[in-house]
Amino acid sequence: MNEPSFNLQQAQLLDAADELRHLRARFEMPSDVIYLDGNSLGAMPKRAVGVLADTASRQWASDLIRSWNDNDWIGAPQRVGGKIAPLIGSGTHEVIVADSVSVNIFKLLTAICRDRSDCTTILTEAGSFPTDAHVAQGAADVFELNVELVERCDLLGQLNEKTAVLLLSHVHYKSGDRFDMASINAAAKRRGVPVVWDLSHSTGAVPLDLRRDGTDYAVGCGYKYLNGGPGAPAFVYVSGDRQQTMRSPLQGWMGHAAPFAFEDDYEPAPGMDRFLVGTPPILSLLALECGIDEFADIDLEQVWSKSQSMFDLLASQMAKLCPQLTLITPVDASHRGSHASFSHPNAWPINNALIARGVIGDFRTPDVLRFGLTPLYTRFEDITRAVNILAEILETEEWCKPEYSQAARVT
Amino acid sequence: MNEPSFNLQQAQLLDAADELRHLRARFEMPSDVIYLDGNSLGAMPKRAVGVLADTASRQWASDLIRSWNDNDWIGAPQRVGGKIAPLIGSGTHEVIVADSVSVNIFKLLTAICRDRSDCTTILTEAGSFPTDAHVAQGAADVFELNVELVERCDLLGQLNEKTAVLLLSHVHYKSGDRFDMASINAAAKRRGVPVVWDLSHSTGAVPLDLRRDGTDYAVGCGYKYLNGGPGAPAFVYVSGDRQQTMRSPLQGWMGHAAPFAFEDDYEPAPGMDRFLVGTPPILSLLALECGIDEFADIDLEQVWSKSQSMFDLLASQMAKLCPQLTLITPVDASHRGSHASFSHPNAWPINNALIARGVIGDFRTPDVLRFGLTPLYTRFEDITRAVNILAEILETEEWCKPEYSQAARVT
Repeated sequence: MNEPSFNLQQAQLLDAADELRHLRARFEMPSDVIYLDGNSLGAMPKRAVGVLADTASRQWASDLIRSWNDNDWIGAPQRVGGKIAPLIGSGTHEVIVADSVSVNIFKLLTAICRDRSDCTTILTEAGSFPTDAHVAQGAADVFELNVELVERCDLLGQLNEKTAVLLLSHVHYKSGDRFDMASINAAAKRRGVPVVWDLSHSTGAVPLDLRRDGTDYAVGCGYKYLNGGPGAPAFVYVSGDRQQTMRSPLQGWMGHAAPFAFEDDYEPAPGMDRFLVGTPPILSLLALECGIDEFADIDLEQVWSKSQSMFDLLASQMAKLCPQLTLITPVDASHRGSHASFSHPNAWPINNALIARGVIGDFRTPDVLRFGLTPLYTRFEDITRAVNILAEILETEEWCKPEYSQAARVT
Repeated sequence: MNEPSFNLQQAQLLDAADELRHLRARFEMPSDVIYLDGNSLGAMPKRAVGVLADTASRQWASDLIRSWNDNDWIGAPQRVGGKIAPLIGSGTHEVIVADSVSVNIFKLLTAICRDRSDCTTILTEAGSFPTDAHVAQGAADVFELNVELVERCDLLGQLNEKTAVLLLSHVHYKSGDRFDMASINAAAKRRGVPVVWDLSHSTGAVPLDLRRDGTDYAVGCGYKYLNGGPGAPAFVYVSGDRQQTMRSPLQGWMGHAAPFAFEDDYEPAPGMDRFLVGTPPILSLLALECGIDEFADIDLEQVWSKSQSMFDLLASQMAKLCPQLTLITPVDASHRGSHASFSHPNAWPINNALIARGVIGDFRTPDVLRFGLTPLYTRFEDITRAVNILAEILETEEWCKPEYSQAARVT
C-alpha cells in the first residue's frame, strides 16, 4: 500500500494536544472498532450501565409505583428537556423530551397548520431525511394541503403567502449540508411563514442558538450526538411566546393541565407540557439523561472546533489516499454539520469491506459513504487509521469480494 | 383490633395450594411492601436486570449500530408484538409494539375517521380513562367531528349511522367494569360502526380472544399486567383483513414499505409495520419483552381463575372487616377485570395511611381506593394482610393524621 502521507504518530500528537481527549474515557468503546457512526447511534456513556441498573433494580423493582413521585419520573421529560436547553440555546422551559422525532414533527406541523387555513402548502426539501417528508404528507392530508418537495437551492424562492409551514432539516443527513438558520428564519418571517427545524444532525455537534437565530419551532434526536441510547426519546422546542397558542391534535393525558384530575375534557397544560401525549418510556428516557449529562461541563464551541479539525484531516487524507472517492460535504465549516460524506459507485460493498475491517461508518443509498465525527470520543488517530484501511481496501480491491456485494444490511 | 375472621394461616394454605405460586420467584418484590398496584405499574421480572445490562453493555456499547441487524433491534416491534398475540387471541402478524397507548389510539381513530366522511361523531364513554377522550377530541378536531361522551349504559343506544367510530376501554380503569366485547362488536357491526378497544386494563389479566369476539381494532398497555417497565411501549392490533386499507396520517419512516430506501414519497408497509412511526426506544422495548416472556408458559385461564379467587377473598374480607368501604366493582367475574375498587369519602388520606404501612394500592379521584390483583406475584397472604392493616387504620382512625391529608402525590 501507499506510504501514508500523514502517519499515526502525527495523529497521536494531535490527540495528545486535544483539550477534549479526557472525554473518551467516559464512553465505552470496543477496542477492535473504529467507530465513525456516532451520528447514527452515539456511543454509550459508561454511567448509563449504573443508571439503568439503578432504574431497574431500585426505582422500578423496589420503589415501584412510588417512583413517579419519589424518583421524579413524572418530572423527567421537563428535567431532561431543561438539560438540552443550553445545547440548543433555548430557555429551560422551551424544550421537553417526548416521543420520537417523527411524532414531534407531526405535533408541530399540525399545531401550526390548523391555524393557517388560508394556506395550501407544506414546503420541505426534496431528498432530505425521508421521515420529514412522510410526516409532512400525513399532516398535509388531514388539512387538505399539498406537500411541495423542492431542491434546497430553490426553497426560499418557493416560499409565499400560501405556504403554511416550512419544514427543514438543519443538517442534511446524507450530504452534511447545513442551512443558515438565522437567514432562513428571517426570510420566512418576512413572508409570514413559520419554520420547523429538525435538529437531529446538529444537536450536540454544532453550536446552536435558537433564540439568537429567531427560531420558533424545532425537534431533535436523542440517540445521535446526544448519546442517549438506541431509539432514545426525542425532544421538541417551541419558543416561549408561541407555546400558549399551540395546540396539536395529538393530545393525551400527559399533556393535560391536570393529568391526575382524570377529567374528560382536554385542557392543554400551560407550557411545553402540552406536547406530552402518553406515558414516557422511563428506562430509555433516563439513559438519554446520561448522554446529555456528559455535556454538562463541555463547551460546544470546543466540540465543534475539534470536529472541524477532524474533518480537515479526514478530507485531506482522503483526497491524498483515496482519490477515487468524491467529497460531497461542503468544505466550508459554516455550511456543514459534523459528518463527512463521499460518493463512489461501489459505496455499498466498500462500506461492507470497511465494516469487516472494523471501520464502522454508514452507507447511504445510492452511492454514499458517510463518516460521523464525534469529538467526545473520536480521536485523530481513528481518522488516520480509517483512511489508511480504506486506502488499502481500494488499492487491493478487497471490496470486490462477492460477500461484500451480497451482504444484507438493514440500517 | 378485631380478630381477623380469615386468618393468615388459612391464606397461607391457599397459597400453598396455588398452582401459580412458583411464579412469584421470577419477580423482584420488596419485602416490606404489599403491592396491590400491578395494574398501574407491573412488578419487575428478575430477568430484566440482566437483559438491560446486556442491551446496554454488549448490544449498545460494543455492537453499536450493528445491533439493528445483529441483535435484531429492527425486528423487535414485530417480534414482541408476536409474543403478545397469544395473550389477546390474535394472529402473530396482527399486533405490533409501538409508541404509547395514546398515540396508538390516535393512529386508529384517524385511520378510521378519514374513510368515514359521512359521519359526525366519535362515541366514547364518559368518565373512562381520560386519555381516550382526549385523543378522541384531538382526532375529531382534524376531521371536524364531535366527540360524544356517554354513560356506559347508554352507549349502544347512541350508536347510529352517524357514528364514525366507537372507542371503549374494555375494563374501566376505576370501577373495574368490563364490557362484553363480543356483544358490543356485534351490535356495532349491525350498525356498520367500527369499534376501537383500549385493552390497557385487561391484557395479561383477563383472557382475551379478539378473533373469536370479532374485534377489528385495539390498543393495549405494556407497563401494567404485562410487567414491561415504567412507560413501556404500547401495542396496536388490527385484524388481518383490515390492515391493508388502514392509513393513519401519523406516518413516519419506520412505517414505510422500504425504510432504508430513503424515498421522499411515503408508501405504507404492507402489514402492521405501517403503524410504526419513528425509531422505537429499544431499552424500554427489550424490558417489555422480558415482561411478556414471563407469560410464555402460563395459562391465562389459570391466571384469571386465581384473580377471581383473590377478588372473592378481598371482597369478603373487606365486607367483614372494613364495612365502611363500598365495593364499586362488579361481583360477577364476567363483568370485571382484575382489580377491585372501593369508595370512601376519605379515600385519599386512607390510601396515604396504607402506603405509610407498606400497602400500596391506588387512590383514584374523587373517592376510590383501587387494588390490583396480579396473580403472577400476588399471594392470598398479601390480600389478607392488606385487609387486616386497612381494618386497623380505619378502627384506630390512623388515617386522620394531618400528614395523610396533606401528602402531595402526583400519580
